[in-house]
Amino acid sequence: MTVTERTLVKNLAALEDGPVTVRGWVDTVRDQKKVQFVVLRDESGAVQLVNPRNDETEQIATTISGLAQGSFITVTGELKHDERVKLGGIEVKLTSLTVETEAIPETPIAADSGIDKRLDWRFLDLRRPEMNLVFRVQTTLEHAWRTWWVENDFIEIHTPKLMASASESRAELFEVEYFEGKAYLAQSPQFFKQMAQPAGFGRVFEVGPAFRADPSFTSRHATEFTSVDAEISWIDSAEDVMRMHEQLMVAGITAVKEKHGAEIAELFGVELEIPTLPFPRIPLAEAKRIVAERGYEVQRADDDMDPEGERQIAAYVKEEFGHDFVFLTDYASSIRPFYHMRHADDPSLTQSYDLVYNGVEISTGAQREHRVDVLIEQAKEKGLDPDELGFYLDFFRYGVPPHGGFGMGLSRVLMLMLHQSNLREVVYLFRGPTRLLP
Amino acid sequence: MTVTERTLVKNLAALEDGPVTVRGWVDTVRDQKKVQFVVLRDESGAVQLVNPRNDETEQIATTISGLAQGSFITVTGELKHDERVKLGGIEVKLTSLTVETEAIPETPIAADSGIDKRLDWRFLDLRRPEMNLVFRVQTTLEHAWRTWWVENDFIEIHTPKLMASASESRAELFEVEYFEGKAYLAQSPQFFKQMAQPAGFGRVFEVGPAFRADPSFTSRHATEFTSVDAEISWIDSAEDVMRMHEQLMVAGITAVKEKHGAEIAELFGVELEIPTLPFPRIPLAEAKRIVAERGYEVQRADDDMDPEGERQIAAYVKEEFGHDFVFLTDYASSIRPFYHMRHADDPSLTQSYDLVYNGVEISTGAQREHRVDVLIEQAKEKGLDPDELGFYLDFFRYGVPPHGGFGMGLSRVLMLMLHQSNLREVVYLFRGPTRLLP
Repeated sequence: MTVTERTLVKNLAALEDGPVTVRGWVDTVRDQKKVQFVVLRDESGAVQLVNPRNDETEQIATTISGLAQGSFITVTGELKHDERVKLGGIEVKLTSLTVETEAIPETPIAADSGIDKRLDWRFLDLRRPEMNLVFRVQTTLEHAWRTWWVENDFIEIHTPKLMASASESRAELFEVEYFEGKAYLAQSPQFFKQMAQPAGFGRVFEVGPAFRADPSFTSRHATEFTSVDAEISWIDSAEDVMRMHEQLMVAGITAVKEKHGAEIAELFGVELEIPTLPFPRIPLAEAKRIVAERGYEVQRADDDMDPEGERQIAAYVKEEFGHDFVFLTDYASSIRPFYHMRHADDPSLTQSYDLVYNGVEISTGAQREHRVDVLIEQAKEKGLDPDELGFYLDFFRYGVPPHGGFGMGLSRVLMLMLHQSNLREVVYLFRGPTRLLP
Repeated sequence: MTVTERTLVKNLAALEDGPVTVRGWVDTVRDQKKVQFVVLRDESGAVQLVNPRNDETEQIATTISGLAQGSFITVTGELKHDERVKLGGIEVKLTSLTVETEAIPETPIAADSGIDKRLDWRFLDLRRPEMNLVFRVQTTLEHAWRTWWVENDFIEIHTPKLMASASESRAELFEVEYFEGKAYLAQSPQFFKQMAQPAGFGRVFEVGPAFRADPSFTSRHATEFTSVDAEISWIDSAEDVMRMHEQLMVAGITAVKEKHGAEIAELFGVELEIPTLPFPRIPLAEAKRIVAERGYEVQRADDDMDPEGERQIAAYVKEEFGHDFVFLTDYASSIRPFYHMRHADDPSLTQSYDLVYNGVEISTGAQREHRVDVLIEQAKEKGLDPDELGFYLDFFRYGVPPHGGFGMGLSRVLMLMLHQSNLREVVYLFRGPTRLLP
């Protein structure tokens, strides 16, 4: 698609020397006595513009001398390949320069600004090549996932984010004024993606927002996040969900490595590895024994893992199997939602898993309980009122196939893939308890 | 991806006669004296199962006699090609039948139930082949759009749905209890997709929910809808946005026709046509003259079109150009948001358009005003307080390229593509002023 006469910076190197038009923003200006240099950046890269000062170029020289960093400009000039130019071995000798919009000269953030300051000015922070790359990686990753799903006969759904009641827990629920009454923001698409099963959709996926009124300020939580969900019919156990899940991860990482591997290595110092199939699977109880043997005792009152435990088991898996991923399986019923199916021979355990990537949990998956009488019992046991769950329980009363699926945090995957320590770095606009702006 | 030993119904016809396993739900049962027939349906189609009654098949016969419609079953049997069988020329002679989940025998909806009743039981309504097709079409359409965007270097973004203030109008805003304060649900991703322009992303797209506290009950409005958005840098006018938009529509419809054209003709009686490029463009003032000449006077106090006017101009375009689409351009500044750019030579008109498809508006697009001083003036003129828009106005103060884009209702496109008269038919779960369930 060509909208205007314009060459993207990334495409310049392949052109022969000659006239070009380039459009982007001013990254830096070196205003010297005999020659001026401007580094222009666009969505695809950076290029050096050059203006030797003489009588003919005086007008351009004056404009350049007044150029504020960040201003958007359109330039024409003569492209010249020159190995001595550090920046890509090319430069553009200016014949014209038009300032499209002038920037305020004082940039409010610097390279060493803290994350909160940078988030205040996220639109400037996103101009950094690393940030630009994050979202190109996101684009490639999602497209690879969706392509895999489409090729495997999945149906894409968009479930409502406005609900009459909670889908996960009443504790972290946002309340909405809804005409004369109340609505709640979906904490996950759980109930509605399950609805696709009695609806006979077979296999579904969704990528969309989810909301948690979680007051915590950790580096890996947000009040709004992009949830990647899939749900499939006719499974025999959680194993079938894991098989789908691991194939999906391989498809995504393969596409990202192919398209951005070199750039990720350059800008993030990360050599992406395509994981081998199958991913290691370790029952949670065994994982805890392994971690304990490594000298770490999980510090939790319940049966769950903790973040250090996840790091430890990931380190073990990396050492033993050379793998970045591990499925922790068979979580205790006591710490899983009522809709997880339990083992037939040991109801204290569920047909569920967490997927850990580079030491951090990115996803929870499970086979769902589809027998309505068992489901009601499990809900009661968790202190839930089956009457409040009425619409959800109806899904199971008119026939439903055995099914299961997972929910996964998109930004967590990106954070771990690019070895970032804070989710905020890889979310377009972060939302937390004290952040609604910009 | 094979999860379990199972053949999808749509793949049976290509198999040779022999043993098969099929899984799905009971569509109908004909329980005759000498032979029993069951139509089994799955996500891909329907197949006839047959059980001749004799001593050997008595157990299966008893199960079939007790089968409730909608129950999910697993069957094995002998596939046989037989041209006399109406349903696809194949049938499966049963060797086993397992009921996975029994349905309540009384189905709460019938083929002639009204839309509200059917929405109460949407998960059963979605079992109808037409409904299944709607969402397979949705999947193909979205994937074709995203593929086109990805091939054209667009970046996919997920903008926050929780905002500190309104993005469109204060009138139709949902308020959220946000910890100690308030937040609002995004009425569109407008401000945030524009933010990608000063961020230097170049071209972006998003498919995600948008929320309007619109109390109306028309056949084409919802309080939550899936918005399809794109925004591109370095345009010269709204014409560049339309060029992108029309190419996208062609890519989508081409993919849908290729994959589902025959089925759409069969189930909806619609012969999909791939629109020719370019789509007709008619300035709104001219469209009104044409409609008036056809004997219809637009009944509005302001300068806008009305639904009947849209139908009339669409009929005109169909007669004159044989086209299903028309861009109505150059809407009056008085009825467009403050962020639409106005014509340099006539500030009473905007660089904007509506896209009309089969007689109904599906999208609004425009070049955006990127000059911050002009933007502030236009905001004031609309009675908005620039201080409240502070974070948005900042996007334009540090440099921004000329840009524009569109927002489009996904379900409107589907509704019009499949000649449905009510949006509720093509939304997975409709949300309206009095509907939050299921």
